[in-house]
Amino acid sequence: MPSYITPQREMRFVANELLNLPEHYASLPGCEETTDDIIEAVIDAASTFSEEVIAPLNQVGDQQGCRLEGDTVITPDGFKEAYKEYVDGGWPSLANDPDWGGQGLPDSLSIIVNESVGTANWSWSMYPLLSHGCTKTIETHGTDEQKQIYLPHLVNGNWTGTMCLTESHCGTDLGLLRTKATPQDDGSYEIKGTKIFISSGEHDMAENIVHIVLARLPDAPAGTKGISLFIVPKFLPDSDGNVADRNQVSCGSLEHKMGIHGNATCVMNFDGAKGFLIGEPNKGLSCMFTFMNSARLGTAMQGVAHAEWAFQNSLAYAKDRLQMRSLTGPKAPDQPADPIIVHPEVRKLLLTQKAFVEGNRALAYFTAMQVDISKHTTDEAAREHAEGLLAFLTPICKGFFTEVGFEAANHGLQVFGGHGFIAEWGMEQNVRDSRISLLYEGTTQIQALDLIGRKVLMTQGESLKRFTKIIHLFCKEHAGDKAMKPFVEPLAALNKEWGDLTMKIGMKAMKNKDDVGAASVDYLMYAGYVAVAFMWAKMAKAAQDHLANSDSERAFYEAKITTANFYYQRILPRTLSLKETMLSGADNLMDLDAEHFSF
Amino acid sequence: MPSYITPQREMRFVANELLNLPEHYASLPGCEETTDDIIEAVIDAASTFSEEVIAPLNQVGDQQGCRLEGDTVITPDGFKEAYKEYVDGGWPSLANDPDWGGQGLPDSLSIIVNESVGTANWSWSMYPLLSHGCTKTIETHGTDEQKQIYLPHLVNGNWTGTMCLTESHCGTDLGLLRTKATPQDDGSYEIKGTKIFISSGEHDMAENIVHIVLARLPDAPAGTKGISLFIVPKFLPDSDGNVADRNQVSCGSLEHKMGIHGNATCVMNFDGAKGFLIGEPNKGLSCMFTFMNSARLGTAMQGVAHAEWAFQNSLAYAKDRLQMRSLTGPKAPDQPADPIIVHPEVRKLLLTQKAFVEGNRALAYFTAMQVDISKHTTDEAAREHAEGLLAFLTPICKGFFTEVGFEAANHGLQVFGGHGFIAEWGMEQNVRDSRISLLYEGTTQIQALDLIGRKVLMTQGESLKRFTKIIHLFCKEHAGDKAMKPFVEPLAALNKEWGDLTMKIGMKAMKNKDDVGAASVDYLMYAGYVAVAFMWAKMAKAAQDHLANSDSERAFYEAKITTANFYYQRILPRTLSLKETMLSGADNLMDLDAEHFSF
Repeated sequence: MPSYITPQREMRFVANELLNLPEHYASLPGCEETTDDIIEAVIDAASTFSEEVIAPLNQVGDQQGCRLEGDTVITPDGFKEAYKEYVDGGWPSLANDPDWGGQGLPDSLSIIVNESVGTANWSWSMYPLLSHGCTKTIETHGTDEQKQIYLPHLVNGNWTGTMCLTESHCGTDLGLLRTKATPQDDGSYEIKGTKIFISSGEHDMAENIVHIVLARLPDAPAGTKGISLFIVPKFLPDSDGNVADRNQVSCGSLEHKMGIHGNATCVMNFDGAKGFLIGEPNKGLSCMFTFMNSARLGTAMQGVAHAEWAFQNSLAYAKDRLQMRSLTGPKAPDQPADPIIVHPEVRKLLLTQKAFVEGNRALAYFTAMQVDISKHTTDEAAREHAEGLLAFLTPICKGFFTEVGFEAANHGLQVFGGHGFIAEWGMEQNVRDSRISLLYEGTTQIQALDLIGRKVLMTQGESLKRFTKIIHLFCKEHAGDKAMKPFVEPLAALNKEWGDLTMKIGMKAMKNKDDVGAASVDYLMYAGYVAVAFMWAKMAKAAQDHLANSDSERAFYEAKITTANFYYQRILPRTLSLKETMLSGADNLMDLDAEHFSF
Repeated sequence: MPSYITPQREMRFVANELLNLPEHYASLPGCEETTDDIIEAVIDAASTFSEEVIAPLNQVGDQQGCRLEGDTVITPDGFKEAYKEYVDGGWPSLANDPDWGGQGLPDSLSIIVNESVGTANWSWSMYPLLSHGCTKTIETHGTDEQKQIYLPHLVNGNWTGTMCLTESHCGTDLGLLRTKATPQDDGSYEIKGTKIFISSGEHDMAENIVHIVLARLPDAPAGTKGISLFIVPKFLPDSDGNVADRNQVSCGSLEHKMGIHGNATCVMNFDGAKGFLIGEPNKGLSCMFTFMNSARLGTAMQGVAHAEWAFQNSLAYAKDRLQMRSLTGPKAPDQPADPIIVHPEVRKLLLTQKAFVEGNRALAYFTAMQVDISKHTTDEAAREHAEGLLAFLTPICKGFFTEVGFEAANHGLQVFGGHGFIAEWGMEQNVRDSRISLLYEGTTQIQALDLIGRKVLMTQGESLKRFTKIIHLFCKEHAGDKAMKPFVEPLAALNKEWGDLTMKIGMKAMKNKDDVGAASVDYLMYAGYVAVAFMWAKMAKAAQDHLANSDSERAFYEAKITTANFYYQRILPRTLSLKETMLSGADNLMDLDAEHFSF
C-alpha cells in the first residue's frame, strides 16, 4: 500500500535557504508576523494532518468513488470526517482576509500547505481548494452585502464554493455558453441551464455550497462580451445569513472518469434557480481573469504532487525489490539478487522524478512569492514587476509541471514493472489521477498559447525579458565561480537562446499567425526546462555555499549538486529537439487537408 | 462512443505497394499459395469480424471486467460468444502448421489479422493470442505424443493456452523462481507453486486450458540454469485425447488493474497439479527463447493498436468539435466556432499519432517478413540474415512501438480536452489499456538492454550493420533523386551517426559496463526513430512513384508525403536530445548513493 510523508526537509530548504521566505515576509506590509517560527509550525501541522488524516483516504477514495443518492452526493468513507477536522483546525481560513475571519497568512505559505495536502490526497483536497475561486470572486467583485452574507462561511469552511463555467458544447471557448439569467422583480435572476465538469459541485461535507455561475442576460451580446457572473447558493441564506430554502440547483449525474474518483465531478442542473448578479453585467469573464493566475498556480501544484507521490513510493520499491545483478557485479552478494536501484535505467526513472519534483517545487514557491508581492507591497514598481512575473510564469508552471508531473507519475509506475499496473500498489491510481491536470484549468495547448501569445508576444517580449534578466544577473554574478561553471555556462547560453527563439517566432508570426500556434507547446516546454534549470543552478549554488561553510548534513547538500548535474546532463538536452521543432514552421502541420488525414 | 474501422487502405498500401508481400510469398516455399486474392480476402474477413463482433465489446469489457465465481472466471458479456465465432471462422488455425490442422498461412499475414483484431479489442484478443506461446512450445519441444494430444485442440481453438512464468518475487529475473516439480512414479510430475500475472489463465471461453509452467526439479541447479518446462492442463486428457479429470490447478484470484479489464489476469495456484515435462530438464528458459522474438512482435503490435484507436477517434472528434476561431481567421464562418482541427497544436497531436501508426505498422510488417523468411526459406544465408534482422528489430519494435503508442494514446485523449478524461468517450480506457504494453513481455528497460547489450554489442555491431546496410543502400539508390532529398539526406546522416554512437558506447562499456545500461533506453528510442524514418522515406518514395505514373487516389499518396515531411521535421529531431543524453555517461546516474535519494 502506498504512503506519503511530507518532504519537510525539502520544503524548508526551498522556503528558508533558497528563497529566504522569512526575509521576504518581513519586507511585506501585513506579512511581517509570518516569522520562521510560524512557517515551521504551519508546515509541521500541515504535515501531520496530511499524513495522518488525508493520505490514508487516498486509495479509499479511488476505490469507492462518489455516489449520487437522489440529488445528494455521498463522498467516500472518511472524507466528511476529514473535512470536519480540516475546518476545526482552521485550515480554510489560512490565507484569507482577516476582515472575514481569515488568518491573513501569505499566499506562498498556503501553496506549501496545499502541496502537502494535495500530494496526500488530491481528490480530497479539491473540495476545500475549489472554494478559492468562489471566495476570491465575491471578495473582489461582490457588494458589501454579498461579502457579509457569504465570505464568513466560505472563509471558515462551513460552506464550500464552486466555479460553474463549462457546458457540454463549450469548455475552452466560453463565448459559446448558453446558460440564461432572467431578471426577476425582486432584483434576483432566474438561472436556467446545465453545467458540466463541476468539481465538488455537490457533496455531503459542508452545510451549503455556493456556486459562481457564468450565464447570459437576455439582451447580452454574443460571445465572451455577453457573459455575467451570478452567485447561486445551494441553500438560500435567510436574513440572518443562515441556510434556509433549497434553491433549484441540483446534481443531475456524476461523471464516470479516469481518475480523481474521490472528487465529485458533477453535471449541475439550474432549473430556474435563484441567482444574484455579481460584478458588472457582461463583464463576467474579465472579472474571472483577475485571479486566474493564482488559481492556475494551484493546479500547477498537482504536477508536483503526483511526481512527489510517485517518487517516494517508487524509491522505496527500488530499494526493496530484488531482481537481477548489477552489470558491474553483485552489489548485495548476500541476497539472491540486487535491489533494482543498482540498475542505471531504474536510477534514471528515479532521478527524473526527483529532479522534476524538487526543481518544480522551487519554481512554484518562487512564483507564489510574486503573488505575495503583488498583493502586499506598497511599492508600485515592485508590484508591477511581480504581477508581470506572475503572469509570465503561471502558464509555464501550469503547463510544464503537469506535463512532466504526468511523465514522473508514469516513471514511478514503471519502476514497479508489472506490479505498477496493479491497483494495490497505488501507482496506477497516481497516473490516472494526474492525467486530468493536463486538461482542466486550460489544457497544455491553451497554456502554451497564453504564454507565447498573450504573455510574450503581446508584451513585445517585455514579460520574457523581466524573467531572463533575473537569470542573466545570476549568471553574471557567478560567472567567475568555477564550481558553478557546469550550470552557469549552459544556463547563460540557453537564456540568450530563449530570447533569440522568441524573436524568430515573432518575426514568423507577422507573416503567418499559425506559426505562433505551431511553435507554442514546444516553446512552453522549452521555457519550463530553462526556468527549472535556473532553479537547479540556484539550488546548486545554495548547496555549495552551505558545504563551504558547514559540516552539517553534507549528504543532503551533496545530493542537491548531484541532482543538479543530472538535470543539466540528462533533462536539459531536451531543449535541443524543442528548439529544432519549434522553428520548423506551421506548414508541416497545416499542409494536410482536414479531409485527407485518413482514407 | 468510440468506434473502430480497420484501416484496410493503409494495410494494403504497406502489404502490397510498400513491401510487396505477394512477391515475397511467391518466393518462399510453402507460402506460394498466399496470392494477393488470399491476402485481400483475409484482410477483408478479419476486418468484418473485428468491426462487427469484437470492437463493440471493447467498452463492455472494460466496464464489466472479469469476475471469479468459485474457481471459474466469468468473462464480460459477449466475449464467450465472440470467441465461438472466432473458432467457427477458423481464425485460430490461420498461421499454424497444416500437420495439426492449421492453414499454414505466413506469419506476416497473421500479424495483419492480429492488428485488426487487437485494435478492435485488445483485452479480448489476448485470449486467443496467448495460446501462441503454448502452441509453439509444444510444437518445438514436445514429444510426438504430446503434439498429438495437445496441438489439434490448440490449433482449432477449442483449447487455449498460457505461459506461466512470473511469481510474486520474480518477473524479469526468472532465475529466482520457486515453483517445484517432483517426479512421480508414472513419469509425470507434481507441480506446486503460485504464479501471478497469468493472462487468460482461467476463463469460460474454451473447453480446456493448457498451461506451460516454468518450475524447478528437486535437484535443479540454482538460477536460470535450473528451470524446466511442464505442460499442466486444466483438465487432464484421457487416452482418446478428450478432457477428463480436473487437474489441481486453479485461479486463486483476479488482479484488480489499471486497464485491459476484459482480460483475466490470474493468480494461478498449482496445488500438486499433474504436469508433464516438455523438452530437456533444466533447459526450460532457453527453450522459451526460441520463439520469444515472434511473441514480442505480437506485443509490439499493441503499440500500433492503441495509437490507431486513438487516432481514429480523436480525428473524428477534431473535425466535429467546434471551439474557438483559427488564428488566421474563421474557417467555418457559418458555424459558431471552427472545428478544432484548424488549430496547429491539435493537428500536431493528430499528426503525431498518424505518423507513429503508419510508420510503426510499416516497420512491423517488414519485421514480420523476416519471420516468414526465417521459417520458410531454403537458402541458409537468407535465413541467417532474416533471423539476425528479426533478433535486432524485435526489441526496437516492442520497446519503441509501445512507448510511442502510449504517447499517441495520450495525444488522442488530449484532443478531447476535459471530455478525454470521461469514460464514455473511450479515450481514457485506451490510455489505461495501453499502459501495460510498456511492462509485460519485458519492460522498455529490458528491451533496451536486450538491444544494446545482447543484440548489438555482443555481436560486435554485426546485427546493427545488417540493418544499417539496408538503409545505406536505399539512401545510395535515391541519392540523386531531388524529390527524395528531404528524406535521404537526414536519413543517411542519422544512419551513419547510429554506427558512430554505437562505437562510442561500446568503447565506454569496456571501461564501465554501467555505461551500457545508462545509454540503453535512449539508444533504443534513437533506434526506433531512425528505423521508422527509414520506413517513412520508403513510403514517400512509393508515393512519389505512384504520383509520377498515375492519377488515381492522388490525395492518398500526397498525404503520405506530407506525413513523411511531418515525421522528419517534427518527430525525428528528438534524436538530437537522445544523442546528447546517451553519451552523457553513467556517472550522472550512479553518483548518488542509494541512501541519499531522499532525506
